[in-house]
Amino acid sequence: MNLLVEDLVDMARGAAFLGTGGGGDPYIGRLLAANAIREFGVPKIISTDDLTDDAFVCTVAMLGAPTVLSEKAACGDEVDLVVRLMEKYQGRKVDALMPIEIGGLNSMMPIMAAARLQLPLVDADGMGRAFPEIQMTSFNIHGIPCTPAAIADEHLNSLVVEAGSAKRAEDLIRVVSIEMGCSILMSSYSLSGRDAKRAAVKGTMSLALEIGRIIARGRRTGDPLGALIHYLNSTASYGASRELFAGKVVDLQRQTARGFSIGHCHLEALDGSGRRAEVTFQNEHLAVREDGELRAIVPDLICMVDSESVEPIPVDALKYGQRIKVIGVRAPPMLRTPEALAVVGPQAFGLEDPYIPLEE
Amino acid sequence: MNLLVEDLVDMARGAAFLGTGGGGDPYIGRLLAANAIREFGVPKIISTDDLTDDAFVCTVAMLGAPTVLSEKAACGDEVDLVVRLMEKYQGRKVDALMPIEIGGLNSMMPIMAAARLQLPLVDADGMGRAFPEIQMTSFNIHGIPCTPAAIADEHLNSLVVEAGSAKRAEDLIRVVSIEMGCSILMSSYSLSGRDAKRAAVKGTMSLALEIGRIIARGRRTGDPLGALIHYLNSTASYGASRELFAGKVVDLQRQTARGFSIGHCHLEALDGSGRRAEVTFQNEHLAVREDGELRAIVPDLICMVDSESVEPIPVDALKYGQRIKVIGVRAPPMLRTPEALAVVGPQAFGLEDPYIPLEE
Repeated sequence: MNLLVEDLVDMARGAAFLGTGGGGDPYIGRLLAANAIREFGVPKIISTDDLTDDAFVCTVAMLGAPTVLSEKAACGDEVDLVVRLMEKYQGRKVDALMPIEIGGLNSMMPIMAAARLQLPLVDADGMGRAFPEIQMTSFNIHGIPCTPAAIADEHLNSLVVEAGSAKRAEDLIRVVSIEMGCSILMSSYSLSGRDAKRAAVKGTMSLALEIGRIIARGRRTGDPLGALIHYLNSTASYGASRELFAGKVVDLQRQTARGFSIGHCHLEALDGSGRRAEVTFQNEHLAVREDGELRAIVPDLICMVDSESVEPIPVDALKYGQRIKVIGVRAPPMLRTPEALAVVGPQAFGLEDPYIPLEE
Repeated sequence: MNLLVEDLVDMARGAAFLGTGGGGDPYIGRLLAANAIREFGVPKIISTDDLTDDAFVCTVAMLGAPTVLSEKAACGDEVDLVVRLMEKYQGRKVDALMPIEIGGLNSMMPIMAAARLQLPLVDADGMGRAFPEIQMTSFNIHGIPCTPAAIADEHLNSLVVEAGSAKRAEDLIRVVSIEMGCSILMSSYSLSGRDAKRAAVKGTMSLALEIGRIIARGRRTGDPLGALIHYLNSTASYGASRELFAGKVVDLQRQTARGFSIGHCHLEALDGSGRRAEVTFQNEHLAVREDGELRAIVPDLICMVDSESVEPIPVDALKYGQRIKVIGVRAPPMLRTPEALAVVGPQAFGLEDPYIPLEE
């Protein structure tokens, strides 16, 4: 995959779609990535197959409250610092970087990091979408430790964390992130090339770019949603995608709590039928119900897009009266195993509903 | 100085006196130190003069809320871990350990650590008493960085912190300590031998032992307070000590907030004069006023002892009706400079009173 600066707009749009409402608005990340590319050149994008089995790969991400992340940019030095700390602590040079999540802002930060550090970037990630917490990764599902993890703020205060579990790492890093102002840089999940091949969701940078391109192209030909759904259903990992509901926002409850955007959004159908849907979210959309009946639930992707342009709408940008289409997309198979559902299934978010695959 | 297991009771008593109400009850620390000595042998106690200029020394301490610290012992592995993390992160073997504070529990923890790790322990500390926050050290006053600092909990979750200032380190470590259950092990303040010679409060382990011994001996001869005051006034660093008030506890306001024991204690004189004194505290006693007039204030030491036995009474053990003597002790000169008062003076605790030396 050859990345061009011009691709970033499309890739950010696709990443926002895969962000399923969360993951942070990729807009500022796109500016940072574009800026780093202009200064340092385009990073080489490689596939997991290009990694030697003993290559040393780690993830780079921003972590915090989406409302803060979209206002407070990274200056760059803290990006370098977290990777350098991983190297120092583990006594080994990093061979390549990888996104921890392809959804939202964190699709863009690794591009900035790879450009700055002149490292290749692996076309894969640990979520295949966005999730709100650090332990919610395909890496953790496959038993790869989250820590050591290095974090830093814009003043270059830093921490290297080692925790007994990825969930404990999440707890510790979350409180520090709040003290650091709800926006930090993090490098975590050290992977060997072998780990990356078995535990990463592959090809997701390409996927985000393609989703963004197809939406843009579809607008010109008049049916962006049809084109998008057709494309998704042609992929091996994502499929069974379809429109779940079309309507306008008639009620919106949204609060920032525990460092997350938590709440729900009610939609009413535009066809006069009176049908209503409710989407609940914790940064990302967790479940959609139509007249009380479950239509889709995590880890399947629930994406809310503008009903005309199919522009993805993050949770923070939801507004009363917006006309929206809710799209369901099947999560990659590795997120749907029993082991995976223990980490990213409904109960991991405190929901009582059992997981029902989107296609059923 | 040759330390014996039998000395720990006296040393803990002296450390509780120097803890000025805080620093954590040394009782559990004494048991841990005694246990480590029985298993690993007595650590060698050295003076700062015994250190080569380029020796690598770091501090070991417990940090948290005193009420938790006095209930939750350290298992030992986390003690080893924080020192090993300092070595790993800095790429150098530690040559000796030092207490960060001689007051309270943290007089004992370094004995446990030094015994376990077979390292010499320096007869000196960074406070010459106890203070509630990490930045409140003679090391910080002398410009020695607090970080890198390593912390760990009893599950061996760990962090290595680097912060732009000792106050920032305090902020970050405090929130993690709360998430870790209000009781953690910490190694911080890497000192060279040269640093230790210029920036530590010297001979304070010996001082704590001697204070404890003199109180015990004074009980047998009938005047422990007189003996104690006579001894303190003979030392070079501590002096001008005297009884400030004698009375019984008639009111006590004490709450655990922000990880500290905060409040005040009112005493009424026993001589029928109706005189009243108020002692305010944040873990440690900060100020004592008699009928509204300031009698002593931090960093000078304000110690509350049982009026008969002169046993030091920690803030957590204060009770209505207790008969108490309040002793003022001059802080070591290096804590009374303008630079020092900026870090450990009344304003550092949010008090409005200017610092007035005890003897004035």
